Amino acid sequence: MKNITDFETVGLNADNSALVIIDQTKLPNEIEFLSLSSQPEIWTAINTLQVRGAPAIGVAAAIGVYLAAKSIDTADYNTFRARFAEAKRYLASSRPTAVNLFWALDRMEKTVTPNRPVSEIKQALLNEALAIKNEDISVCKAIGEHGLNLINDGDGILTHCNAGQLAAVSYGTALAPVYAARERGYKLKVFADETRPLLQGARLTAFELSARGIDTTLICDNMASQVMKNGWIQAVFTGCDRVAANGDVCNKIGTSGVAILAKHYGVPFYVCAPTSTIDISTAVGGDIPIEERDPREVTDMWYEKRMAPEGINVYNPAFDVTPGDLVTAIITEHGIIKPPYGEKLINN
Amino acid sequence: MKNITDFETVGLNADNSALVIIDQTKLPNEIEFLSLSSQPEIWTAINTLQVRGAPAIGVAAAIGVYLAAKSIDTADYNTFRARFAEAKRYLASSRPTAVNLFWALDRMEKTVTPNRPVSEIKQALLNEALAIKNEDISVCKAIGEHGLNLINDGDGILTHCNAGQLAAVSYGTALAPVYAARERGYKLKVFADETRPLLQGARLTAFELSARGIDTTLICDNMASQVMKNGWIQAVFTGCDRVAANGDVCNKIGTSGVAILAKHYGVPFYVCAPTSTIDISTAVGGDIPIEERDPREVTDMWYEKRMAPEGINVYNPAFDVTPGDLVTAIITEHGIIKPPYGEKLINN
Repeated sequence: MKNITDFETVGLNADNSALVIIDQTKLPNEIEFLSLSSQPEIWTAINTLQVRGAPAIGVAAAIGVYLAAKSIDTADYNTFRARFAEAKRYLASSRPTAVNLFWALDRMEKTVTPNRPVSEIKQALLNEALAIKNEDISVCKAIGEHGLNLINDGDGILTHCNAGQLAAVSYGTALAPVYAARERGYKLKVFADETRPLLQGARLTAFELSARGIDTTLICDNMASQVMKNGWIQAVFTGCDRVAANGDVCNKIGTSGVAILAKHYGVPFYVCAPTSTIDISTAVGGDIPIEERDPREVTDMWYEKRMAPEGINVYNPAFDVTPGDLVTAIITEHGIIKPPYGEKLINN
Repeated sequence: MKNITDFETVGLNADNSALVIIDQTKLPNEIEFLSLSSQPEIWTAINTLQVRGAPAIGVAAAIGVYLAAKSIDTADYNTFRARFAEAKRYLASSRPTAVNLFWALDRMEKTVTPNRPVSEIKQALLNEALAIKNEDISVCKAIGEHGLNLINDGDGILTHCNAGQLAAVSYGTALAPVYAARERGYKLKVFADETRPLLQGARLTAFELSARGIDTTLICDNMASQVMKNGWIQAVFTGCDRVAANGDVCNKIGTSGVAILAKHYGVPFYVCAPTSTIDISTAVGGDIPIEERDPREVTDMWYEKRMAPEGINVYNPAFDVTPGDLVTAIITEHGIIKPPYGEKLINN
């Protein structure tokens, strides 16, 4: 096994011919890297959460659409542009909620400008995809440094889902302050919600935190109230998939419940959000499309056998929206934003 | 398969020689009845949740200690009494939190009185065990009738864990009002929290509700916030394992979180509690011992393979305490009790 800090979650292979990802559906039992070059493979990797986490999805889409562009065999700009747009639309259909997917694809599309040879455009797309990837690392690092100001040595931290290294390229968003604190020698106690139904907390967060030697305790989602009541949590840090212009935060299902508990127990609730996840074109959280996923994620998946009666109705939203007034602060690469959000997010 | 309304969750076999239970660890995939006659078998059935739910545990313990008494081969009262006390202590050690276990065993012990032949005491113990069982049915039915006053046709009801037929003898506590409403022809929509780690909501509540043809939707615990936000829930009903004298309610882990969400969304939160679960000798919820269970329930159990990294810390409390001020009303067999609780519970 590679050491976890030695690999990137999402990248491009050496000859720029394939998207390389760690297959997150196999963790923590198997550490398997996938090299994906065809568009259906890349679409499926995003759709089935082999790569997941808003920042990682953005990088995967950028590299994915570069690979699509690279294989467009034409020297005619208009033909190239049309086929690029088609590839972009295809990848954009892989998941509906995380805005980074659309943000990264839009940014790639802006690189497709006329009055130069298609070969140059392809090179520019490669550069842009790598820039998006490298910026993700520095953005996450900056979020970690800002977030560090909200943490004290000895604190207990609760996190939901996975917004660590495995949700980005190499550092993460919600876990970036934890890693920054670790580098300073702080001793933190991190509690990871397992995050049903896909168990990103148990499989990914607990894995990456413990692989880095951080004191980590796994809990079921419904234990967060008791853990807060015990006085074990001084701050909650989560990532996000999209922030609306008013500060409403869309993130993994269950996040809004954690925010309500945090308010009840007087624990600050922090959201770590690269500015790429802030979508000022979405006025309020209610405007964000919420992906509903296969009921079998709840009833069958992972299990030895079915864990619910046949034919039962299942409601399986992948995300929920936490109202901005429950969010103590939003941490971006530029700093810490406190409510009221509105203007401050727009001008961030 | 027997029709679910045709069987009792806990009972005594025809020749009074064995405790008969449906093995709840096998549901919903296998419907298997167990006949248990030895004390270690009965202790293990309670400890491993083959029988669970505060009322059902109480009945199982009553029948269990009767079977122990029946097998005490002496005509000497003092010898009998000492060995009965030993059997009682043993069964009382099977689980620490639900008070019905101790309540039922204490009630059985009160039947052991001197100045009559041991054979008569044994007969009295049999009668008492059957009385405890039969009273459970009528108590649950009465809770259902009282709770019905809190439900309107068309309501959405959320419940956590299982406090239905499978937690009692034949009717349940939290689900009793749902079944009473069903008998009146109400169309309810019931949402069942799956209730990690042991999935009593998915395996048991969804099973018994859908077997009775009630519109049931299964959700992960962390989806309750979204379901309430959608406006789908008009009332929460849960059972309980022990109510302290001040109205604090100990119930399945996650209940306190649901209560906090209900308060946030303005949804009434009702606890269905036979008076046998009200423990006025426990002043406040903080005095109730909370069972912590095997970490493998969180990381391994049910799964095809381990779902968390090896060696990870796990916190796995089986119960939590909901402060009385979050409980809109407590429904007993005698009626609906509203806060402030204190005196009202003691005089109930």
